Amino acid sequence: MIIIGEKINASLAGIKAIVLERDRARLLELARTQATAGSDFIDVNVGTGVGSREDEMCSMQWAIEAIQEEVKTPLCIDSADPAVLEAGLRARNGRPSLINSAKAEEKNLEQVLPLARRHHAPIVGLAMDEAGIARTVEGRLRACEKIAAACEKHGVSSETLYLDPLVIPVSTDIKQGLVTLNTIFEIKKRLPAVKTVIGLSNVSYGLPGRTGLNAAFLHMAIYAGLDAAITDPLDKALMGAVKTGEALVGKDRHCRRYTRAFRGG
Amino acid sequence: MIIIGEKINASLAGIKAIVLERDRARLLELARTQATAGSDFIDVNVGTGVGSREDEMCSMQWAIEAIQEEVKTPLCIDSADPAVLEAGLRARNGRPSLINSAKAEEKNLEQVLPLARRHHAPIVGLAMDEAGIARTVEGRLRACEKIAAACEKHGVSSETLYLDPLVIPVSTDIKQGLVTLNTIFEIKKRLPAVKTVIGLSNVSYGLPGRTGLNAAFLHMAIYAGLDAAITDPLDKALMGAVKTGEALVGKDRHCRRYTRAFRGG
Repeated sequence: MIIIGEKINASLAGIKAIVLERDRARLLELARTQATAGSDFIDVNVGTGVGSREDEMCSMQWAIEAIQEEVKTPLCIDSADPAVLEAGLRARNGRPSLINSAKAEEKNLEQVLPLARRHHAPIVGLAMDEAGIARTVEGRLRACEKIAAACEKHGVSSETLYLDPLVIPVSTDIKQGLVTLNTIFEIKKRLPAVKTVIGLSNVSYGLPGRTGLNAAFLHMAIYAGLDAAITDPLDKALMGAVKTGEALVGKDRHCRRYTRAFRGG
Repeated sequence: MIIIGEKINASLAGIKAIVLERDRARLLELARTQATAGSDFIDVNVGTGVGSREDEMCSMQWAIEAIQEEVKTPLCIDSADPAVLEAGLRARNGRPSLINSAKAEEKNLEQVLPLARRHHAPIVGLAMDEAGIARTVEGRLRACEKIAAACEKHGVSSETLYLDPLVIPVSTDIKQGLVTLNTIFEIKKRLPAVKTVIGLSNVSYGLPGRTGLNAAFLHMAIYAGLDAAITDPLDKALMGAVKTGEALVGKDRHCRRYTRAFRGG
């Protein structure tokens, strides 16, 4: 499982303050702890919701430059704005990066996919289009296939595409858990070279016992064919759930990683 | 999820003593606690490994009569020997029973399926034949389809058939978790009227942290389409895992059972 550490996200109040105050020490602390916990990528989202596009571009450049000076883990440049993605990629200057994200909208794809091509960066594509997020597996797959087709057109290899079928809280619509899981399953069947990724925690929004629900959904998603998760690498229960899940679906030879993780607590 | 309480099984030393000593009080205690914990069926296996076939038939009759005098929960008559199954069904005298089990062997099916027909009892069919347990999904499915065809021939409705794809420890072969899960998935696709059942705990044999592994496997199996589990209804972690899993796949309207179970601890 590819783990994308989610903790540097300025939509959270604590992180918003770090970005607005240019608090380098706390930013680095968040990057370092996530790197040490075994993140494969550290997500960097500096969208505070205040200020201009240029402000966000500056914030992205600041955050990327600060983090990469001390932390070698690949970064996941996270913004809905292609200009902010580009500012982040420029600051990375060829270091390993994941672009998060494009969606299945013509204009957005035309702006973001050339960045992926030019910076040789893998890219997350969200299963949503001009009409929003479809409520059905077929609708989500249509968006996914539109992104995959656009990647081919722009010379972006499907091996560097991570499709995110999106997770909607089951508390708002009990069927949406299965829609996400079945979309993962169908993506792996129809587009076997493509990777799948989800932001896990949304599934349990509005319900008690969220860690248990998130772990259970992760187990189901691993069986459905999930390759990567945007999640909290400091959450020991969830990181344990990754090891448990991989041992059960044959992705952990002789269960060695599971046994080692279990002994390590 | 249909829960079949597994605790009355004379292959366990404590239960063997209860059967050999005709310890009615302790037998009833096991039946009562499993009924209270919400079992849909209570499994009764009196195979101590000592004595004759007639001894086991007597033990089955004794156990069934003792339990049904006090506990109204349906019983699951568990033996590899058709004569012992018949002794149990006779003692039930038409009360709701599940036959556990037949396997995909000509002779066995010819003996057990008429019992299911005559006693109007649903039946568990094991995915194993004369050659043993196949290591592949295709092999397990061949055994399942042989049982389903025999049911049709004997006038046993597929709606009363529970197919058990069998669980082999992942510690002995890392691929076997997926074989079981994919067999469940394929059974539900090819034989939609049939129910699926597994004995859960075998998956984690030989590994540490078995409850966590069992719960994770249960989550995956629920997503694959599992209908019933032979398990310990007194294990709160596992019973919680059932509620969690069902909430995530849309089998718990408005997540009410999950929320109630969570509040109840």
